[in-house]
Amino acid sequence: MTRPDQARLDAQMDFLAEADRLKGVVRASRVLRGERFENSAEHSWHVALYALTLAEHAPKGCDTGRVIAMLLIHDLVEIDAGDAPVFGDHDAAALSAREQAAAERLFGLLPADQATRFRALWDEFEANETVEARFAKSLDRFVPPNLNLASGGGSWVDYGVDWDRFETGIGPRIAHGAPGLWDWLAPRARAFFERMAGR
Amino acid sequence: MTRPDQARLDAQMDFLAEADRLKGVVRASRVLRGERFENSAEHSWHVALYALTLAEHAPKGCDTGRVIAMLLIHDLVEIDAGDAPVFGDHDAAALSAREQAAAERLFGLLPADQATRFRALWDEFEANETVEARFAKSLDRFVPPNLNLASGGGSWVDYGVDWDRFETGIGPRIAHGAPGLWDWLAPRARAFFERMAGR
Repeated sequence: MTRPDQARLDAQMDFLAEADRLKGVVRASRVLRGERFENSAEHSWHVALYALTLAEHAPKGCDTGRVIAMLLIHDLVEIDAGDAPVFGDHDAAALSAREQAAAERLFGLLPADQATRFRALWDEFEANETVEARFAKSLDRFVPPNLNLASGGGSWVDYGVDWDRFETGIGPRIAHGAPGLWDWLAPRARAFFERMAGR
Repeated sequence: MTRPDQARLDAQMDFLAEADRLKGVVRASRVLRGERFENSAEHSWHVALYALTLAEHAPKGCDTGRVIAMLLIHDLVEIDAGDAPVFGDHDAAALSAREQAAAERLFGLLPADQATRFRALWDEFEANETVEARFAKSLDRFVPPNLNLASGGGSWVDYGVDWDRFETGIGPRIAHGAPGLWDWLAPRARAFFERMAGR
């Protein structure tokens, strides 16, 4: 190993210190069987572990390493822009503008060449077109319903979501990059909503 | 994508549901400038992001993807065995036995072939011999001092650690796989300990 360029390493360490703040961004999902709300840092770990564990269910030709890299950085913009719960009401244009500005500032802490690479990876995730972005985005949508099932409904109860809204709003977003995972989840979620409605 | 084997996917989902419990394992480090203690799930995310960001400082021939995979699973055993703070007193043999049993149970939730692969990756990390394991282990030791510096001393203050103990106990463990990162950290940590001792 050659001695690292100090200015370069300084910039990388500034970025990593700022990233610590993702641990303070609170999401709508609950963890530990409903004990408390999840933060975006632990979510990022969990969804990256999903990618590692479920790699065989990705579409053909998918590079798991790139999926995991995307998932490690996918929520960093929330440090400035906040988390937007999937069932909440948002001004989509305003949120997108906040996230673009956040990406500019946060990835801009890195050395220029690396800033460009990380930003391109985040843009690719957001665009949801490449095979890796599609699998990553689908996993990002697949994890919270499983937390909801493990915690008595979680954000579904908080936001008054029913099966139709879940199937229409979330189903296609999971199936887009991970149809087999949607097939696994759908009957479990449906049974939960039916039990909830039946009472 | 072919339709996934349902028993196989069931096992993987059991593993991922159990992994959620890592969010409840509390570490000795503080996050958010000292606001609260860190949990092992958000730590696992942060150290994986370190690996992604600092990959260029790894020893030659190091496969970053393997480093990140190791770091995503490196602390799962703490779900059963608990976190052992680096400056605390431990019965090393008893801790190791608890961690081995935890690895057996947790990775054993996965389909057999995958259980073997994940277990081998964790064993490799623990053995600290391959270039990937050495870089991963060094990063795992490199992150907490940086959190301590950002939070007024953190676990150094709690455990009454001084520069000599830090340099002797932690320095070689960081330098083993990431000498350039130890060179970056050492003067910053030393200056902190000197300020603390000088008052």
